[in-house]
Amino acid sequence: MSAPQRLHVPVKSVGYVPVQNEVELFSAAHAAALPVLLKGPTGVGKTRFVEHMAERLDLPLITVPCHEDLTAADLVGRYLLQGNQTVWVDGPLTRAMRTGAICYLDEVVEARADTIVVLHPLMDHRRELHIERLGESLRAPASFMLVLSYNPGYQSLMKDLKASTRQRMIAIDFAFPPAHVELEVLTSLYAIDRSYAEQLIRLAGAIRRLDDEGLSEAASTRALVSAGKLHRGGMSGRDSAVAAIASPLSDDEEVRRGLVELIDTYLT
Amino acid sequence: MSAPQRLHVPVKSVGYVPVQNEVELFSAAHAAALPVLLKGPTGVGKTRFVEHMAERLDLPLITVPCHEDLTAADLVGRYLLQGNQTVWVDGPLTRAMRTGAICYLDEVVEARADTIVVLHPLMDHRRELHIERLGESLRAPASFMLVLSYNPGYQSLMKDLKASTRQRMIAIDFAFPPAHVELEVLTSLYAIDRSYAEQLIRLAGAIRRLDDEGLSEAASTRALVSAGKLHRGGMSGRDSAVAAIASPLSDDEEVRRGLVELIDTYLT
Amino acid sequence: MSAPQRLHVPVKSVGYVPVQNEVELFSAAHAAALPVLLKGPTGVGKTRFVEHMAERLDLPLITVPCHEDLTAADLVGRYLLQGNQTVWVDGPLTRAMRTGAICYLDEVVEARADTIVVLHPLMDHRRELHIERLGESLRAPASFMLVLSYNPGYQSLMKDLKASTRQRMIAIDFAFPPAHVELEVLTSLYAIDRSYAEQLIRLAGAIRRLDDEGLSEAASTRALVSAGKLHRGGMSGRDSAVAAIASPLSDDEEVRRGLVELIDTYLT
Amino acid sequence: MSAPQRLHVPVKSVGYVPVQNEVELFSAAHAAALPVLLKGPTGVGKTRFVEHMAERLDLPLITVPCHEDLTAADLVGRYLLQGNQTVWVDGPLTRAMRTGAICYLDEVVEARADTIVVLHPLMDHRRELHIERLGESLRAPASFMLVLSYNPGYQSLMKDLKASTRQRMIAIDFAFPPAHVELEVLTSLYAIDRSYAEQLIRLAGAIRRLDDEGLSEAASTRALVSAGKLHRGGMSGRDSAVAAIASPLSDDEEVRRGLVELIDTYLT
Amino acid sequence: MSAPQRLHVPVKSVGYVPVQNEVELFSAAHAAALPVLLKGPTGVGKTRFVEHMAERLDLPLITVPCHEDLTAADLVGRYLLQGNQTVWVDGPLTRAMRTGAICYLDEVVEARADTIVVLHPLMDHRRELHIERLGESLRAPASFMLVLSYNPGYQSLMKDLKASTRQRMIAIDFAFPPAHVELEVLTSLYAIDRSYAEQLIRLAGAIRRLDDEGLSEAASTRALVSAGKLHRGGMSGRDSAVAAIASPLSDDEEVRRGLVELIDTYLT
Amino acid sequence: MSAPQRLHVPVKSVGYVPVQNEVELFSAAHAAALPVLLKGPTGVGKTRFVEHMAERLDLPLITVPCHEDLTAADLVGRYLLQGNQTVWVDGPLTRAMRTGAICYLDEVVEARADTIVVLHPLMDHRRELHIERLGESLRAPASFMLVLSYNPGYQSLMKDLKASTRQRMIAIDFAFPPAHVELEVLTSLYAIDRSYAEQLIRLAGAIRRLDDEGLSEAASTRALVSAGKLHRGGMSGRDSAVAAIASPLSDDEEVRRGLVELIDTYLT
Repeated sequence: MSAPQRLHVPVKSVGYVPVQNEVELFSAAHAAALPVLLKGPTGVGKTRFVEHMAERLDLPLITVPCHEDLTAADLVGRYLLQGNQTVWVDGPLTRAMRTGAICYLDEVVEARADTIVVLHPLMDHRRELHIERLGESLRAPASFMLVLSYNPGYQSLMKDLKASTRQRMIAIDFAFPPAHVELEVLTSLYAIDRSYAEQLIRLAGAIRRLDDEGLSEAASTRALVSAGKLHRGGMSGRDSAVAAIASPLSDDEEVRRGLVELIDTYLT
Repeated sequence: MSAPQRLHVPVKSVGYVPVQNEVELFSAAHAAALPVLLKGPTGVGKTRFVEHMAERLDLPLITVPCHEDLTAADLVGRYLLQGNQTVWVDGPLTRAMRTGAICYLDEVVEARADTIVVLHPLMDHRRELHIERLGESLRAPASFMLVLSYNPGYQSLMKDLKASTRQRMIAIDFAFPPAHVELEVLTSLYAIDRSYAEQLIRLAGAIRRLDDEGLSEAASTRALVSAGKLHRGGMSGRDSAVAAIASPLSDDEEVRRGLVELIDTYLT
Repeated sequence: MSAPQRLHVPVKSVGYVPVQNEVELFSAAHAAALPVLLKGPTGVGKTRFVEHMAERLDLPLITVPCHEDLTAADLVGRYLLQGNQTVWVDGPLTRAMRTGAICYLDEVVEARADTIVVLHPLMDHRRELHIERLGESLRAPASFMLVLSYNPGYQSLMKDLKASTRQRMIAIDFAFPPAHVELEVLTSLYAIDRSYAEQLIRLAGAIRRLDDEGLSEAASTRALVSAGKLHRGGMSGRDSAVAAIASPLSDDEEVRRGLVELIDTYLT
Repeated sequence: MSAPQRLHVPVKSVGYVPVQNEVELFSAAHAAALPVLLKGPTGVGKTRFVEHMAERLDLPLITVPCHEDLTAADLVGRYLLQGNQTVWVDGPLTRAMRTGAICYLDEVVEARADTIVVLHPLMDHRRELHIERLGESLRAPASFMLVLSYNPGYQSLMKDLKASTRQRMIAIDFAFPPAHVELEVLTSLYAIDRSYAEQLIRLAGAIRRLDDEGLSEAASTRALVSAGKLHRGGMSGRDSAVAAIASPLSDDEEVRRGLVELIDTYLT
Repeated sequence: MSAPQRLHVPVKSVGYVPVQNEVELFSAAHAAALPVLLKGPTGVGKTRFVEHMAERLDLPLITVPCHEDLTAADLVGRYLLQGNQTVWVDGPLTRAMRTGAICYLDEVVEARADTIVVLHPLMDHRRELHIERLGESLRAPASFMLVLSYNPGYQSLMKDLKASTRQRMIAIDFAFPPAHVELEVLTSLYAIDRSYAEQLIRLAGAIRRLDDEGLSEAASTRALVSAGKLHRGGMSGRDSAVAAIASPLSDDEEVRRGLVELIDTYLT
Repeated sequence: MSAPQRLHVPVKSVGYVPVQNEVELFSAAHAAALPVLLKGPTGVGKTRFVEHMAERLDLPLITVPCHEDLTAADLVGRYLLQGNQTVWVDGPLTRAMRTGAICYLDEVVEARADTIVVLHPLMDHRRELHIERLGESLRAPASFMLVLSYNPGYQSLMKDLKASTRQRMIAIDFAFPPAHVELEVLTSLYAIDRSYAEQLIRLAGAIRRLDDEGLSEAASTRALVSAGKLHRGGMSGRDSAVAAIASPLSDDEEVRRGLVELIDTYLT
């Protein structure tokens, strides 16, 4: 894999439009064998970025959506009964280590602290995983990389990433892309009509500026793409935006009405 | 399946009387491979709507009533002991993917967050389900569709749909139908006597306007249907309305008395 | 089963003295295939009423006392190991569906929400139960009926019947019977001495009027029956009432003393 | 078993000195097939009373100490693996029903509500136990009796006996015995030196009058017996009372010092 | 085993230096078949005392460190799979009963209430253990003795020994020994240099007088022993006391600094 | 293993730069068979110190990352099904005892209290482990040593090391190293450019002085090393410090901006 360098990144088969230095940072972290934490709101493209980087670095990608019942065994592996034999089945983390893949733990803050702790020896100079059940210690090959994502907006007293976990990683911050980048995403990657895309982006800008008025999360790029798809399928621009942006965003009747008014203002 | 188009929707074998653009939106979402979230109070016809759409789109329908102990394995599948063999049994979600069906998760907000998270890779551009236990990745066929329903009135601090889940779907809002639609539902679909149906709808209107006065949920269309059935079975109109509408709505003696007074006012 | 009709109800082998229109309502609900919710305080005769109706309608009755650890599998069935074979054993709900019985869930509010949710498809127009483990869908035969009971006095923030459950049923309210009905119950059904029965009913009336003074539940008909039985067994009227009514009602020394004073006043 | 009658109760092999009408009440309840609830503080002799009554009525006694993890299966029975066969093993409740014994649930308020609910059908006119796992319904023989004990002093918001459980039983209140009865217990049943016994009873009287001053439970008859035994074993009267009464009663240094002062006052 | 008698207690192979009448009380309790509760702070020698008494009474000793997941089965025994046979394996309590040993439950307040309740029938006149799984009732032989220890300083609302448990035992209070006894312990039992031992004891005295100033537990005899051992291993007296006394006692930087100042004052 | 002595400690294959007397204290504790508690913030080098000491003392090292679901069986061992045989598999603690290794429990405060209690008999004069399941008692060989680490900054009401556990150990305090030591660590152990290392250390000093301003944990030595590695990989000094220090430290936008300003100040 090539040394990190700041160059124009051509859209490849998993298209991605870079915003800042995220491509270079990810590459440098991979070369230095450092785990990476992707921080940012939902629908901003973190998952697509990891898919894109896996393709660039020509590495297999193994994704694990985290949740509060994800156990260490779910990551590492377990004995399963097959026929009347018990056979060991590697979990996604172990499989990623054996194949030198990127292991991507999506929304890691959802996982239980004890499960995350299992990753610690993999995150420092040791880069090793002891599999108690097999009596086997795996050392990560050079190409193996651990990537975690999380959404700081969800962060609460109960669920937070411990400092001892965070300081083992370098972090890359994601935010909503600037308008010209988002426009390129909608038109190039998703073939949405340019004029409707421009209206949607202006609408999204207005909604994102509201931010604190009772919306748990501002309109994401993903929601704009959904509106574009409905529109392409024959729904009016207004109906598409209501169904893909206003209705999912809030259950509060008043907030929803405000959003529809914004839609009526920005979509002509 | 045909492209979505706004046309008069004839009542088919699973009768349904449309209120707004819900039929077209659902069809457009299916054509664009977008998952759909149905929002609205209980007894307003969400389940019947999905049954109706499955028939229109000529797709099998698999319904899963959600609850707080629904695990990912309940959705995806598990190994079961049969005789002295362990055999894999697909869960309803996997079955829906293999057969290109609509998978309908009813009252999804009841399910645990970790179970819902399993759906995420199925809800974005990936549309895939990795079955860890089988070492198998399924891609959804074009006809597969994920539909979730939930009742915003139940929404609480503890149980809410995460923004990262909501923004993966388009949403359709359901409310109590206007009187002429509800009358058609009662008389055409359930063969309730037109004069008693009109009285019930006026009564329901009065109750729904009370809304904030200690009623956790206003009188649903379903409750009106039950009253109609008791009436057809020989009970007086008043006794039918008390048993089907007033008694289930509240345990508070004073509220219940108020409802009975409304019944005495509107049912002559 | 006969059409509901308001007629004098003769005491049959499971004796029951009707108070209002509960017999007719239950019959009409059964004819219309509607589930029934019995609401009312403990010891007022809900269980006996269901037993009586099962006899009237000539249907088998399957009773399930609910509790907070009642699982869906407890209702539906499970595979059990017998010898070294696993065999499927129907739960009480499934058994009731296969035999067209009345399935009576006593104190249903004690059950976990997820267990109650399993009943939903059985409670609306579908009347069907999907048994995931067997890959089998059962449709309820016409005679099958679901009856739930609960005590609104226990209702709390934590444990309440959800509106989506309540609105699927018609409800029948139970209260303490008027004195002449209660007297008939004590003397005809339980052969308690008429003069002692009259004293007990006056005593119960006095206690029930106290209601809010620290008693979690007023003296039930069942408690009066117990006092009558102790009396018949040779204990004095006062000792019988203290042991069967005052002592179980409260642990507060002062409240208990007040109850004993009432006993001394009303039992001569 | 003989009809209840108020007569002098001779001390039998399990000695018991009656205080009020508890022997007659228990006998009458047994004859009327009513379950009994024994209420009172710890160490006051409830367990010994049940043992005594079992002997009087010539019935086997099966005792179950309740705790918060006692499950319904612990009471009813379960399949156990023996060799490579699964065999059904009756629980204590089922065993008591089959043999017509007294089943004594000690400190029942400790048990989980769902476990207690299993007893309900056994407590009313049905007197039956349905064993789901065996597909078998047992009817209680006439001699079978259910006895529950609990200590109202422990009663809390979290752990209380539900009214629907309490009203199925008659209740007998226990309190500390009057001095002359307690003296007979110490000297006749436990052969404690009369002069030391008199001192201990005066001491206990003084402690019981303190009651509200930070003592969770006053000195029980059982504690007096322990002091007497230590004394008989050669310890001084004062050392015996400190070890058996003052030290177990409180961990608060000041309270303990007050108790030792009382000991120095009453034990000469 | 000999009758209890107050005599000079020679230090035996498990050395112990008695402080008050604890040796005589323990012996008298054993002779009277009464269970014993040892109360006192950590590190004061309760465990060593029990080991010493087991040797004096020539009884085997079985120790169970209690914790919040200790189940009744952990104490009583369970069936285990060995090869493809299930065999019953006695737990430590059952083993102690069969061999007439002392069963010592260390820090019993950590155990769950339901586990402690299992001990009740063993603690009163019955002295018996019913093993449900074996259908077997064991009576304790005369030499069997139950000893529990707990630290009142940990006592909290959540974790406390119930009065019904406490009153079944006699209690022996332990406190920090007077200086001359502690000096004998350090020099005779642990061969610590007399001059350093005297400094440590003066230091401990000063710390124990602070008591309420943010220290969860004062310096124990055990901590003094550890300091002595480090000193014997070549560390300076000051470094030894900091590492064995100040650092373990508190994480609060200010408190720790205060302790180091005390060390600098008392260790010359 | 040699007696502890204060001498210059040459950097060995697992490099370590000592700050105070930690090497001597650890050696003396090992010689005196005392368990050791390492206290200090994350990323300060506790794990590396243990690895270094294991090499110095020429002992095998077995590390257990603790978490809230770590059970006693995870430490001690369990029976596992292999083929159709159950075989006993030692846990890491048992393995460490059998081989005379150092057993290092990392972040022990995360483990459940009941799991830690299992260690108690290993921590006092007994130094023994009773394996209930095997009916076997192991005595620790002289070289066996128990080392625990924890971070006092995480200490909370819920999760704290009990005094009875703490007082069984001697404790070594770790803090951020003085600048000249940290510089040696960065340049000698990690080959980071001296000039960039000096800038990073000045930056870290500034951040550590902020301490109370909303940072849950100050910049660790480990974070400085990560920045150095990114820099070596071609990223600018500023980008490296943002990604490795500022972004992981805080999710608060304002705090993060402050950190970036500090970076702009100290990195020229």
